[in-house]
Amino acid sequence: MEESWATLGVDLHLEPTGTGGLRRGLTDALRDAVRTGRLAPGIRLPSSRALAADLGIARNTVAEAYADLVAEGWLTARQGSGTRVAERAAVPPADRGAAPRHREPERPVHSLIPGSPDLAAFPRTEWLKAARRALAAAPYHALGYGDPRGRPELRTALAGYLARVRGVRTDPEAVLIMAGFTHALRVIAALLAARGVRTVAVESYGLDVHRGLLQQAELATPALPFDELGTDTRELADAGAVLLTPAHQFPMGTPLQPDRRAAVVDWARRTGGLVLEDDYDGEFRYDRQPVGALQGLAPDRVIYFGTASKSLAPGLRLGWMALPPSVAEEAVAAKGGTDTVGVLEQLTLAEFITSGAYDRHVRSSRLRYRRRRDALAASVSARAPEVTVSGIAAGLHAVLRLPPGMEQSVIQAAAWQGLALHGLSFHRHPQARAEPLDALVVGYATPPDSAWAGALEALCRVLP
Amino acid sequence: MEESWATLGVDLHLEPTGTGGLRRGLTDALRDAVRTGRLAPGIRLPSSRALAADLGIARNTVAEAYADLVAEGWLTARQGSGTRVAERAAVPPADRGAAPRHREPERPVHSLIPGSPDLAAFPRTEWLKAARRALAAAPYHALGYGDPRGRPELRTALAGYLARVRGVRTDPEAVLIMAGFTHALRVIAALLAARGVRTVAVESYGLDVHRGLLQQAELATPALPFDELGTDTRELADAGAVLLTPAHQFPMGTPLQPDRRAAVVDWARRTGGLVLEDDYDGEFRYDRQPVGALQGLAPDRVIYFGTASKSLAPGLRLGWMALPPSVAEEAVAAKGGTDTVGVLEQLTLAEFITSGAYDRHVRSSRLRYRRRRDALAASVSARAPEVTVSGIAAGLHAVLRLPPGMEQSVIQAAAWQGLALHGLSFHRHPQARAEPLDALVVGYATPPDSAWAGALEALCRVLP
Repeated sequence: MEESWATLGVDLHLEPTGTGGLRRGLTDALRDAVRTGRLAPGIRLPSSRALAADLGIARNTVAEAYADLVAEGWLTARQGSGTRVAERAAVPPADRGAAPRHREPERPVHSLIPGSPDLAAFPRTEWLKAARRALAAAPYHALGYGDPRGRPELRTALAGYLARVRGVRTDPEAVLIMAGFTHALRVIAALLAARGVRTVAVESYGLDVHRGLLQQAELATPALPFDELGTDTRELADAGAVLLTPAHQFPMGTPLQPDRRAAVVDWARRTGGLVLEDDYDGEFRYDRQPVGALQGLAPDRVIYFGTASKSLAPGLRLGWMALPPSVAEEAVAAKGGTDTVGVLEQLTLAEFITSGAYDRHVRSSRLRYRRRRDALAASVSARAPEVTVSGIAAGLHAVLRLPPGMEQSVIQAAAWQGLALHGLSFHRHPQARAEPLDALVVGYATPPDSAWAGALEALCRVLP
Repeated sequence: MEESWATLGVDLHLEPTGTGGLRRGLTDALRDAVRTGRLAPGIRLPSSRALAADLGIARNTVAEAYADLVAEGWLTARQGSGTRVAERAAVPPADRGAAPRHREPERPVHSLIPGSPDLAAFPRTEWLKAARRALAAAPYHALGYGDPRGRPELRTALAGYLARVRGVRTDPEAVLIMAGFTHALRVIAALLAARGVRTVAVESYGLDVHRGLLQQAELATPALPFDELGTDTRELADAGAVLLTPAHQFPMGTPLQPDRRAAVVDWARRTGGLVLEDDYDGEFRYDRQPVGALQGLAPDRVIYFGTASKSLAPGLRLGWMALPPSVAEEAVAAKGGTDTVGVLEQLTLAEFITSGAYDRHVRSSRLRYRRRRDALAASVSARAPEVTVSGIAAGLHAVLRLPPGMEQSVIQAAAWQGLALHGLSFHRHPQARAEPLDALVVGYATPPDSAWAGALEALCRVLP
């Protein structure tokens, strides 16, 4: 038996010069031998003296390695029975690598899927500069467990920015920093459910992910009517809250009409309902100053949601809410005791805003996207006269109305060409009452500059 | 009437040279006048021609500003009735600033509250360097909506690091990036509840926040027995899962004994139960190599939780789980569709680990904390002979056993001196059966280097 341990010694591939030292190397090697089954459960190991002699190392080193592995549970040591491999140490090999594989899907050649800004235009250098300044200025205790509302620097910067640019009336105390819009909506859905709300009306067109988040909180999500003027907010009586995209309906692209803005506010004041205002791309209007946030009309009834996902990048996972005072405390509690958003990113965004870099980036993005929208409209009108571009000159996407019955075939033809597209039907509420329309929702901001011309050309080729 | 509008014109403080241009300036000024009540609800505004003449600007500019404010809902325009301030535009002034104020509490002069590393020692320069390299290397599409499991770069770096340093056996596919431990525990609590688990056994000593998170998911949290050897895991029959700190019991400071490690694994294998291994400070052992993670013994039954909160800073909000294959898919679903953790922080941590900066930082922190622990033990033994330091030489905190009945009076005396301390009773499970002990849980890592000597001196002064 002692013979075989010499082999074990060789098998262990001990490297006395390894970084962790001899004891560490021996421990790792023995653990590995147990794991892989080379040392079977129940087998008795050589005495520390014998193995030390085999390996030409100090007996104490072996004894310590054995003790480590006993403490970890790989080996057992009993008076009179020596050191053995523990019975439970071996794990069926089938177990390894059996985790589900989510491979990144094959990337199409071109994508005009809406919902993303041009990620290649993310201002990396400016962002890093802001990060350096922010980190240099931060007191050390800012790196601790944070205020659940988020860093005061960022809440203050946002309250000022939103007042100036979007007409939001709030206070840093009522601003909550979130890990993007979905995180914010999940927290508010839980808050509404806890308040006894049963129904949150949503628009006939929107994102199924958002409806899904509300439904996960056991909230019903009936569809508001939609007509040629846009979402109709005059039938809200039963709902406890309503989710809207007032500045730029997603995806249809119209702003909420003045009398319907008024109707929502009146309903909220009258019934105590809450308006969830998703202002996802409020900074991006190309033909005129954007319509101010609905929140400014009724700060006591509107929860305003903003995000850096369209203005900077979704990967930052930074969003924010401006809350009515009556909701603020509950929202903080629903968010949970520890901030879920990294402090360094928050401080960097605060610095990015107050230094003016955010405004500069939004301006240059606006120019970029406006040019793309104009090019899209011009190409479509020149090459696909049966297709019309609808919606206001704003945002990161346009709706292309197609002749009836053509939506799926255009998307299919695009897929064959390596162009990823979303149809409008993808964004339609399953219970929407309006006549289904055949259309594409074209995210013209999605490609990097270098791919934009190619994506547009690919699109034009598949349009009727 | 027209007279008064000249005053309005002056009141508007129009600055034709402002950044936004005349129209923007006029719109903002009018909106502000409505908001503040200077223009009362219902009042009729002058015609655009009249106001333009008063202000000496083009009529079209006024007409456009009016149109903007009608679109936003501040004004109404009706054929024949002119432009009026909307009835709902005014908001009671009491509304402003009525949000609840959470002021940061007065900071005590010294804090030895456990749970935080030395935040002043956060490696700012190294972190920024890693951020720069990570951002330079990242493909632009990394900045988009992410894989819900987290960036593959970080999952790969962690799988390697955890195998090397903690004996964790996992695969990047089974690693999930979380916004710290509380986020991870909240997700797993929801997962367990959805699986029909009713009971998660916890240790007699631990954090009430963690018990609270489990209870929020309707899980019962009975206390495991605790004796002179530490947590006793031999009475787990009824639980569906158990939450443990095997490497270094928090706060008592003992590792889980080998036969009790074995008992947990046997229980999990026999009953299908899950072990939640909170490895919060596994890197910090000062006297020997740390005990390997329990997860290495039973990767199919242990959910391993790690965090950057102790090794780097809680403000990063970065934690991770290594999941059994049978749980991975459910955990990703419970986490939700969009990653809640910023991509840039994830890429930075991945670069920080793979470049070796993480190991260097852990080594230097280990040295710093070891010296502090030694100084604490020496001072206590010299100046407070009735007090004993218990627990292994590890981690960021030590338990100081006090003579019976003294815990509250020592904490009170410390508070008077401006020293914040936690007593052991704060961490005791309300249903713990073990005899209550009088002790302090001293977070010796918490102060910055510059304040450590002062904090230690303040502590020694209040010890019996």
